[in-house]
Amino acid sequence: MAKKFKKIYNFSPGPAMLPYEVMRRIQQEFLDFNSMGLSIVEISHRSPEFIAVMDRASELFRQLTSLPDNYKILYVHGGARMQFAAIAMNLISRSKAKTAYYVDTGIFAQVAAREGQRYGNAITAASSKETGYDRIPAIRELSGIDHDAAYLHLTSNNTLYGTRWHEFPEAGKVPLVIDATSEMLARQMDYSRFGLIYAGMQKNLGVAGLALVVIREDLLQDPLPCTPMVLNYKMLAKDNSLTNTTGTFAIYVAGLMLEWLKEQGGIAACEKNNETKAQLIYDILDHSSFYHGVAHPEHRSTMNVTFNLAIPQLEERFLAQATTEGLYALKGHYLVGGIRASLYNAMPIEGARALAEFMREFERVNG
Amino acid sequence: MAKKFKKIYNFSPGPAMLPYEVMRRIQQEFLDFNSMGLSIVEISHRSPEFIAVMDRASELFRQLTSLPDNYKILYVHGGARMQFAAIAMNLISRSKAKTAYYVDTGIFAQVAAREGQRYGNAITAASSKETGYDRIPAIRELSGIDHDAAYLHLTSNNTLYGTRWHEFPEAGKVPLVIDATSEMLARQMDYSRFGLIYAGMQKNLGVAGLALVVIREDLLQDPLPCTPMVLNYKMLAKDNSLTNTTGTFAIYVAGLMLEWLKEQGGIAACEKNNETKAQLIYDILDHSSFYHGVAHPEHRSTMNVTFNLAIPQLEERFLAQATTEGLYALKGHYLVGGIRASLYNAMPIEGARALAEFMREFERVNG
Repeated sequence: MAKKFKKIYNFSPGPAMLPYEVMRRIQQEFLDFNSMGLSIVEISHRSPEFIAVMDRASELFRQLTSLPDNYKILYVHGGARMQFAAIAMNLISRSKAKTAYYVDTGIFAQVAAREGQRYGNAITAASSKETGYDRIPAIRELSGIDHDAAYLHLTSNNTLYGTRWHEFPEAGKVPLVIDATSEMLARQMDYSRFGLIYAGMQKNLGVAGLALVVIREDLLQDPLPCTPMVLNYKMLAKDNSLTNTTGTFAIYVAGLMLEWLKEQGGIAACEKNNETKAQLIYDILDHSSFYHGVAHPEHRSTMNVTFNLAIPQLEERFLAQATTEGLYALKGHYLVGGIRASLYNAMPIEGARALAEFMREFERVNG
Repeated sequence: MAKKFKKIYNFSPGPAMLPYEVMRRIQQEFLDFNSMGLSIVEISHRSPEFIAVMDRASELFRQLTSLPDNYKILYVHGGARMQFAAIAMNLISRSKAKTAYYVDTGIFAQVAAREGQRYGNAITAASSKETGYDRIPAIRELSGIDHDAAYLHLTSNNTLYGTRWHEFPEAGKVPLVIDATSEMLARQMDYSRFGLIYAGMQKNLGVAGLALVVIREDLLQDPLPCTPMVLNYKMLAKDNSLTNTTGTFAIYVAGLMLEWLKEQGGIAACEKNNETKAQLIYDILDHSSFYHGVAHPEHRSTMNVTFNLAIPQLEERFLAQATTEGLYALKGHYLVGGIRASLYNAMPIEGARALAEFMREFERVNG
């Protein structure tokens, strides 16, 4: 294992690696944004220069996702976990019985439901707990849902287990609410199918701190009275997300990520790359008894590839040697263990190739 | 007015200017933090490297403020306005009647009370509304407060009006809760007098997105059931602020701001500078009929100096010429108008001097 990769590949699940071009640009203009003689982090969130940055980011997001006009883009404090509460606060009273459905596809989906339960009745519509969250429950299991429910919540990609919804269910007039934290902008989606879709920004959208929330306008309504004003989606929509000082740096970086995505050929081109990257690793899992994939092959994520070593005692050595080879942050989530390679848009194919090569070599030596 | 200042001085009320040394360091290590080959924004909030950054920031804060051991430091999403709600959610049930007192010293103080009102009874203990918020209400007005109240909320420095509490009132066993957004770390304070003190981080602590919350341990209790888990101070204290992905970049910058503050000689040295800077402008206001200070002289802030021009028609020219001279962001808050110079720790004395010189020259030409 003497070979050294020239580059470091960072497989962190998030905060995650960003494209070199984006990082370099942030660095270059960090002391002098837009020839103002000031940094982007030093100007008011209400300055015309910052508002132009935010509007440009939203415009690019609209273009890249073909977002229909009747959807609003909001930048909301606190990441996805804050939205677990905010979604229920804002939407639960659509249902007289304050009922919402959640599909339990893992720990984050569970936490979302638990937060929803503070504000109403969060009913588990389906679960893959029995099979260790190795799959997405069959869509037919959702047929019995009450059509007066406030919404149906799904986690589109389950970072811990490496599973994803390849197709989204029909839920009639019940709005689909999608936590897309780990795959927003990484796959093509028909946004017109969603009532609300959101993502913490520290994966495909840049740095940590905010969530991007896309909401269909007819769902903007008065939230529960207990809702903090800065989580009130209706007010945020009216205030163009500036109800208070927003995370200006995070929005600036998101804008650069969206510019970069456009330069890469948009979501379709990135999606193809993402499939190629994931397949490089899945090919090894499918032809090895040394590595065991966690996710059922029909439910596999392209963003997070999860596996275990047949000889668990080798896991620590695997991680240590990978780090030495410049392959970082492959340790699985602390609640589930194992190995996890996160392959967001910014991970180049060479990174996945380097990991595949390392896995083969590690198996050859230790298998 | 041909003279050009070599440097730009940014008087933005927040997000505000940061020290050049801090900005330069962020830029220099932006692509390679701590020789990891990765950026600080690309590593996990649970990585030992990031936790070391956060722990070091907290340790410096403790040192610089002489914080007693029975206080916890929390990093909470959403800035000060999110805390307006979170404080009530976390503390209001200390009072059986869910009563808390608020002193109305301006718009932010009012918004804090309005958010508090969602969760209980937010009673206005005193107000300076009648005099246009040009002062802090007399402390004796607080003598009648109910000693079973959950807390007494004050805004230590009122950014919009340029007033501040020079002394904090005694409230017996009612904990003082202080919004110190625009002067935390800019003046010496006896933290043992407070139950809770908090600040949005975009002024003396770096970039926007988070609040730093200091809370006395005995006030950590189960919050109202409607509290989102990421605003639950007790849980955040237990989780070392990592209940979810935190704003890693903001905490990193806060750490650098605290290092810088220490190098400047700490809070006492900065406070002395801040008084000198503010006095340079107040001296002009006190000897001019061309400029009118907003704040009553006994209640003046050292952070935000606010004034109007005796000839209001000249305000636009004042702002335009100041910008040309490299004196940025002097426009008062959009809700109150006028001129506001924000002089946080990072503003060098030369900046205040340049503004004073400009003001004298502008008066000479236009007065």
